[in-house]
Amino acid sequence: MTNLFFKKKNNIKINDILHTLKIKKYKKNISINDIKELETANKTDISFFNSIKYKKLVEKTRSQLIITNKKLISFVPKRIKIIEVENVFLAVAKITSLFYPTAIEDIPNLELRIIDKKQYPKSKFGNNILVGKNVKIGKNCNVGHNTIIESNIVIGDNCNIGNNVIMKNSLIGNNTNILDGAVIGKKGFGFFPGKKINIRYPHIGAVIIGNNVEIGCNNTIDRGSLSNTEIGDGTFLDNQVHIAHNVKIGKNCIITGQVGFAGSSTIGNRVMIGGQAGISGHLIIGDNVQIGGGSGVINNIPANTKVMGYPAKNIRKFIKEQKNND
Amino acid sequence: MTNLFFKKKNNIKINDILHTLKIKKYKKNISINDIKELETANKTDISFFNSIKYKKLVEKTRSQLIITNKKLISFVPKRIKIIEVENVFLAVAKITSLFYPTAIEDIPNLELRIIDKKQYPKSKFGNNILVGKNVKIGKNCNVGHNTIIESNIVIGDNCNIGNNVIMKNSLIGNNTNILDGAVIGKKGFGFFPGKKINIRYPHIGAVIIGNNVEIGCNNTIDRGSLSNTEIGDGTFLDNQVHIAHNVKIGKNCIITGQVGFAGSSTIGNRVMIGGQAGISGHLIIGDNVQIGGGSGVINNIPANTKVMGYPAKNIRKFIKEQKNND
Amino acid sequence: MTNLFFKKKNNIKINDILHTLKIKKYKKNISINDIKELETANKTDISFFNSIKYKKLVEKTRSQLIITNKKLISFVPKRIKIIEVENVFLAVAKITSLFYPTAIEDIPNLELRIIDKKQYPKSKFGNNILVGKNVKIGKNCNVGHNTIIESNIVIGDNCNIGNNVIMKNSLIGNNTNILDGAVIGKKGFGFFPGKKINIRYPHIGAVIIGNNVEIGCNNTIDRGSLSNTEIGDGTFLDNQVHIAHNVKIGKNCIITGQVGFAGSSTIGNRVMIGGQAGISGHLIIGDNVQIGGGSGVINNIPANTKVMGYPAKNIRKFIKEQKNND
Repeated sequence: MTNLFFKKKNNIKINDILHTLKIKKYKKNISINDIKELETANKTDISFFNSIKYKKLVEKTRSQLIITNKKLISFVPKRIKIIEVENVFLAVAKITSLFYPTAIEDIPNLELRIIDKKQYPKSKFGNNILVGKNVKIGKNCNVGHNTIIESNIVIGDNCNIGNNVIMKNSLIGNNTNILDGAVIGKKGFGFFPGKKINIRYPHIGAVIIGNNVEIGCNNTIDRGSLSNTEIGDGTFLDNQVHIAHNVKIGKNCIITGQVGFAGSSTIGNRVMIGGQAGISGHLIIGDNVQIGGGSGVINNIPANTKVMGYPAKNIRKFIKEQKNND
Repeated sequence: MTNLFFKKKNNIKINDILHTLKIKKYKKNISINDIKELETANKTDISFFNSIKYKKLVEKTRSQLIITNKKLISFVPKRIKIIEVENVFLAVAKITSLFYPTAIEDIPNLELRIIDKKQYPKSKFGNNILVGKNVKIGKNCNVGHNTIIESNIVIGDNCNIGNNVIMKNSLIGNNTNILDGAVIGKKGFGFFPGKKINIRYPHIGAVIIGNNVEIGCNNTIDRGSLSNTEIGDGTFLDNQVHIAHNVKIGKNCIITGQVGFAGSSTIGNRVMIGGQAGISGHLIIGDNVQIGGGSGVINNIPANTKVMGYPAKNIRKFIKEQKNND
Repeated sequence: MTNLFFKKKNNIKINDILHTLKIKKYKKNISINDIKELETANKTDISFFNSIKYKKLVEKTRSQLIITNKKLISFVPKRIKIIEVENVFLAVAKITSLFYPTAIEDIPNLELRIIDKKQYPKSKFGNNILVGKNVKIGKNCNVGHNTIIESNIVIGDNCNIGNNVIMKNSLIGNNTNILDGAVIGKKGFGFFPGKKINIRYPHIGAVIIGNNVEIGCNNTIDRGSLSNTEIGDGTFLDNQVHIAHNVKIGKNCIITGQVGFAGSSTIGNRVMIGGQAGISGHLIIGDNVQIGGGSGVINNIPANTKVMGYPAKNIRKFIKEQKNND
């Protein structure tokens, strides 16, 4: 699938990649098409293997060139060429930046123009709306004043986009509302700390928002790094919610005010989260989970359970501990 | 009192209401004037009775037509006609939507126009300010750039409204400051979850802000559903505070950064709340209460007490428990 | 050093100061140049002494006129004239307001004009950007749409300023990014509660942001009262972070989403703070400290330690307590 939002450089030479990583050149300077995860990589793509968890994926991958570290080399099939590095993610960041040089920083797009309403005759627009190139907006939409819609964004039918909304690198379904002041699709908070300058992780993912969704006022929803950030159909977010890169929220969830999600967590369907709760990174929260307000979730939560507390625990246990304290 | 912000349909027929609720029609198709709470309803208004708590109110109400459920029917005086439903609030939401069809969704008002400064010769205005119809602004006010003031808003004298402020369905007293980026008066986060589409609760209440108040940057203050959201005289809110629908905050309160209020809580006078504290819904917090930073308040708090913790408890108890842990 | 952002009245007469404080006039109506802290005050400046902590400073100060209270009078050298008050900070606020009358309220600057791009030929600008007088912007900067840059702001080279950013009373280094919707440099949340009207503390400090810094979306960073609010080189802030007045954050810190800082805390270098953590006021956090997400920090933290919890404690202790609860 072509990346809608970030222009890819084609056929980067392997020796340019090795030069970037400060590794000795190959004799045969082959062309590489793209950088992809093990599952989605094709023959001409470079991929990466950073954890024993992905042992089975590396055995099946179609990639013929893989970045990995010393410990993991022995698990890579012999048919695959290896680039050995110390820090796999740092190498991936550098190579991704070679292919997608515009995905690193969020320079504001200064080539936006005041919307030409004639291009969208079936929807209605406020004052001072700026749009980029190739923006698609369905029918029966309302877009508020001072809102910014950057290039290649797709908005479905019957959507209400509020005032002062800023959208980039996003796809929006039908019947979805995005309320005033929301900022959607900026790069995530991912980088490698350096002594002087932090090395930014490129973010080539998008924000994918489903149908019948509501995004509250002043929400911030960051786009994904290699995968997308996703909000499922029928999910409602209250005001001042923060969603970091790569988070995937299921369908019909209810997320109340000031809740925050760290990166890369996956939330099931029909999950309810009370105000100001925080969800740590890289967690899996099952379907129908209920998380009490103010909770701090630092572990996976199985489906159909209620939790509360900091750190969050089963609600019966939380209540019992409170009673014991009394 | 006429609703300033939402146009009411007059004299809806009872059979249109029953049709909406999928209930058998009456023989006599009487006209209903409005939907109101038990205390404020008049003879021609429909009202609702959803909890035994309101037993005394139902005995005194002037309404002659009440929505209630099976369990509560026996408490309704015989002079009153009853519409029996399973979910009282869902029925109220549907009927309120009949009377106030524009109160359900927050479609951005696209008919705003750049302010005509000549209409407000005693106040000063920045660039790109949009206003609706019938906006009243007192004397000696300053209104910042890119600010949006929707129809029928009233702002008193000597107010400073910052930049990028968005205001709808609100009344503002005198000597009050609303700082940059605040979003005031959008509908609250109230709805009935559905399998595909959530049914939204209509919000016909306003945001009423008193005199000498300060609303911080990037605050979000939602309007009420049936009653109003209120901020009393002399109360100051810091940045990034979130106030949900129907919350009533008293006079001379001090609410610091990132505090959040869930819906329908009532806060007394001179209440002080530390940063990032959260107040659950439907609580009563007495006068002079002090709530420590980061606390999670899930119970009513009597006047003149200090609390801290998650869940919040008397501060002496909180300190003692901390010592016991050591 | 001249205050870049607030115009000072020169040579206020001592008897005008005494009149403001409702204190009997002096015989000799000398001129006072400015109000400063003990360390920085010169001969013609008034200063203040409000805590025994500053005993050594008062012995060395060059100021010849000091505001203090009854308890502290005996520690002031005899060469210094004393103005005795009950509430030192309230008196300081009133006198500071005499010298800096524009530093009290944040009236939006209505004299901004759409940027004249010709004045900044080496940088690029979006639509509807408003700037004040004497704004300096370096080379290779990008400034997004609808952004407001008030008078006397200095922005270095290679900076990206997002859309809908509001900046006042701030100095920005080189290679620094300020993301969409951030509000930087408004007055802090400091005042003396009054029965009707709160007396605001004047804020004559600025926000000083270093090189290679990133400020996240919808952040709020307040300026200092007497000193500055500072963000050191290489520090990155995620979205929805709130930084109160006088906070000083060191170099190469990583502050994740929705973290909040109360006023006047000092944070070391290379400090990492997890999402939604809160830092109380007037604390000192050492270098290399790591604070877990959701923590509530209410005590100083020595360098090189990891803490977590509410209130935050050493991480080993936090984990042990969690196990004991199980």
